[in-house]
Amino acid sequence: MRDAYQEQLDELADALADMCNQVADAMSKATRSLLECDLQLAEEVISEDIRVDEVRAVAEERAFALLALQAPVATDLRIVVSAIHGAGDIERMGDLALHVAQAARRRHPLPVLPAEVAPYFAEMGRVGVALALKAGNVIRSRDLAAAAELETDDDAMDDLHRHIFTVLMDRHWSHGVGPAVDITLLARFYERYADHAVAVARRIVYVVTGRMPGPLAV
Amino acid sequence: MRDAYQEQLDELADALADMCNQVADAMSKATRSLLECDLQLAEEVISEDIRVDEVRAVAEERAFALLALQAPVATDLRIVVSAIHGAGDIERMGDLALHVAQAARRRHPLPVLPAEVAPYFAEMGRVGVALALKAGNVIRSRDLAAAAELETDDDAMDDLHRHIFTVLMDRHWSHGVGPAVDITLLARFYERYADHAVAVARRIVYVVTGRMPGPLAV
Repeated sequence: MRDAYQEQLDELADALADMCNQVADAMSKATRSLLECDLQLAEEVISEDIRVDEVRAVAEERAFALLALQAPVATDLRIVVSAIHGAGDIERMGDLALHVAQAARRRHPLPVLPAEVAPYFAEMGRVGVALALKAGNVIRSRDLAAAAELETDDDAMDDLHRHIFTVLMDRHWSHGVGPAVDITLLARFYERYADHAVAVARRIVYVVTGRMPGPLAV
Repeated sequence: MRDAYQEQLDELADALADMCNQVADAMSKATRSLLECDLQLAEEVISEDIRVDEVRAVAEERAFALLALQAPVATDLRIVVSAIHGAGDIERMGDLALHVAQAARRRHPLPVLPAEVAPYFAEMGRVGVALALKAGNVIRSRDLAAAAELETDDDAMDDLHRHIFTVLMDRHWSHGVGPAVDITLLARFYERYADHAVAVARRIVYVVTGRMPGPLAV
């Protein structure tokens, strides 16, 4: 009986780690659709988001069943509660990848990004995808050193985010208000995506240590 | 024993409803600080956000203790799990009010908003505050009709949000890129604030009916 229970806990963690892979893939494709004005890829991300939502619903049902039937305590209870939080964060990451793809679709066949800002978004996409994959690995490994790495990686995202604003505010900005509005929102989506990946890793620190790390700057 | 347990459940709901009042107050003040360039009010919102975070931490500890010590099932379990979610949503509403106040502070003594868009933000503030207060009432009353009202109120927020973009994109927009970037982010903060209030109300529908309403458009 105890073994079946441990298996259920492991399955819950696996479902969450798989969700991280899904949203990493979504953000990778969404970024490519944005950079390459690839409508088909954007549509793929948009239609696949429902799958992330489904896995989230299943994960939450599993967590609920564990609470109702097994009444976990201590570390096990922290695992289940953190899974409930994590599932929410990861689903949101999927939504944010979806928003990036929607921006690419909305402007198609025109590019959303002027050439001079495209490299920053390529980099934000790379950092975001790496964060999602790392969060998935941290869920599987419960490696605290790896969890701490996400905070540093997120600093790189924050730097990119800030830099994009300096580009927009520069008096040499020649693309007008429309692209600036798109870029403002897109940069925000990537930054929030990264924040949620960090939040997932922080919950794993809580699972292992029983303490949440200090607050995340928002 | 059973009475003490019911009391704990009620206290948890009360803590969440109080948080709704706190973040309604924060958004009300943040909006005034934005519209009236009131630095002192902005500082108040910024320094008080920590209190929302504290109540959230206490609420989450209570929920955790209930799960560990009382092993609730059925409706009671739904209450506790929904409280965990709700606390996260309401804390985020506080963060978004904080972001509005930070924008007011960043540009002080200059206004963030050109006069022509100020009325839209006054209205978004009013709708947002009303949503937060309604969410608090729904937590207390578990009134499904009131919960459904939040969805309609949120449509008003979405309309305002969309309208602001048409103002920014209009060729008569004369304030340049900087204010447009500020306004884009601010409008997003109000819209997300409303989304989180709706999510809180939806969780109450789940508590009462055992079913989540259909997905929230994001």
